[in-house]
Amino acid sequence: MKIGIVGLGLIGGSIAKAIKQNTEHKVFGTDLQESVIYKAILLEAIDEKLTEEVMPQCDIIILALYPAAAIGFVQEHQSELKRGAVVIDCCGVKSAVCREIQPIADEKGFVYVGGHPMAGIEYSGFEHSQKNLFKHASMILTPQRDMSIQDMDQLKRFWMSLGFNHVEISTPEEHDQIIAFTSQLAHVVSSAYVKSPTSIRHKGFSAGSYKDLSRVAKLNENMWTELFLLNRENLAEEINGMIERLQEYRDAIQAGNEKDLWDLLHEGTERKILIDG
Amino acid sequence: MKIGIVGLGLIGGSIAKAIKQNTEHKVFGTDLQESVIYKAILLEAIDEKLTEEVMPQCDIIILALYPAAAIGFVQEHQSELKRGAVVIDCCGVKSAVCREIQPIADEKGFVYVGGHPMAGIEYSGFEHSQKNLFKHASMILTPQRDMSIQDMDQLKRFWMSLGFNHVEISTPEEHDQIIAFTSQLAHVVSSAYVKSPTSIRHKGFSAGSYKDLSRVAKLNENMWTELFLLNRENLAEEINGMIERLQEYRDAIQAGNEKDLWDLLHEGTERKILIDG
Repeated sequence: MKIGIVGLGLIGGSIAKAIKQNTEHKVFGTDLQESVIYKAILLEAIDEKLTEEVMPQCDIIILALYPAAAIGFVQEHQSELKRGAVVIDCCGVKSAVCREIQPIADEKGFVYVGGHPMAGIEYSGFEHSQKNLFKHASMILTPQRDMSIQDMDQLKRFWMSLGFNHVEISTPEEHDQIIAFTSQLAHVVSSAYVKSPTSIRHKGFSAGSYKDLSRVAKLNENMWTELFLLNRENLAEEINGMIERLQEYRDAIQAGNEKDLWDLLHEGTERKILIDG
Repeated sequence: MKIGIVGLGLIGGSIAKAIKQNTEHKVFGTDLQESVIYKAILLEAIDEKLTEEVMPQCDIIILALYPAAAIGFVQEHQSELKRGAVVIDCCGVKSAVCREIQPIADEKGFVYVGGHPMAGIEYSGFEHSQKNLFKHASMILTPQRDMSIQDMDQLKRFWMSLGFNHVEISTPEEHDQIIAFTSQLAHVVSSAYVKSPTSIRHKGFSAGSYKDLSRVAKLNENMWTELFLLNRENLAEEINGMIERLQEYRDAIQAGNEKDLWDLLHEGTERKILIDG
């Protein structure tokens, strides 16, 4: 197959490298920065630049862009996409993206599938991309309801061939609700955690729990601002729940209520065992 | 030297194994469970049982017990301790422990040093103890003000020989304030995080940030209840700060205020770089 990748940052670059490493597909790539395209060719992450001439030949187009840019790209290039081609975005929110792209797909006759590779590190850009980024990760897909089983099967095998160990089929709405907890709330909490006035004095007094809680506080503020605001209802609800639960612990501690505190901690242990068991 | 270890759980067991692995000292150990003592002898984690006959010969006594039990042990056995012996506890809070043990040390003529090994895993008990638990970890000591440089130097070298890469000298008050953030708040936040109603549906939708945020939610509720209540003012203050900061993110997200949200996330990134740089 001919595969086009739009955006060669951490995710797009890693997808390109994983395809080249694991398959025989031909990879075309493009990026706003010309220098990144040349670097990707030099490092054999892509075969050639994705041009307007090549675009209509691609069987799969992967959009590794932020939400607004992904939508903008499809709006601008809708007439260059092959009928029957599969277009997949990689955005961290799905409802806001799918509702813009799906009508264009219906009109132009390409197959659109929302996607979200559940992998990442606290660095961005092509220079941090790696062919093994998706090892053991989950790829979430939110296909349109009438996508054929054959297309879905082929697409699933494509993603599995890049190292993913699971393809999760979901809806945009379910995706956004769950991701508000697993990913977005985690980033908000970590960001808020490191801002304690005490954090500046942590060295010599910290170990694994500090390290884990603070890791994702270093984040790409442009990307996360866009993602959070496109999922604001779900995320605000998760933050409110977090605040309410923290108040319960605070009340038990301030009151010196041993039984309540023990129960709260015990429930947390039981929940963690239940959800990861 | 002859070293006595009281309590052969995760920490005491790991200290025993690290001493046997790295030094020529003779190790005596005891535990409430007789079976654990026999297991420790069988696995050569200790040389012999720490009995009332051996206690007065020990140069160092390490109390790897919860706070109330550590204080109770010293009260009960104060007359069996050698004059000039060094007694160290390993409790996660220091003010509440030091203010009980220090007067007994002054009266009986042994040297008391508060201690807190900054290492741990989400499992407890001798069966999880490991000789390398303290590799690259920090050992916090809160010695009495008039401890001699020679004794301090010897004690520092002893802990470094077990694998610690740093000995942090502090006061009980400073320790409790900073640990309320680095360790205690991290555990409260993780425990509260996993209780989101959404957490039960995380599989297929979660990756590194969920994993890191949820790891220490599985905790020993007996130990942490005791530790939290012995440091309640510092911890309640940290939780309140966390709640206030989360409200700022929530407000910016609910209002769709892009600039405020970007600033909040950017400040988190800058803070994380500052404190770990």
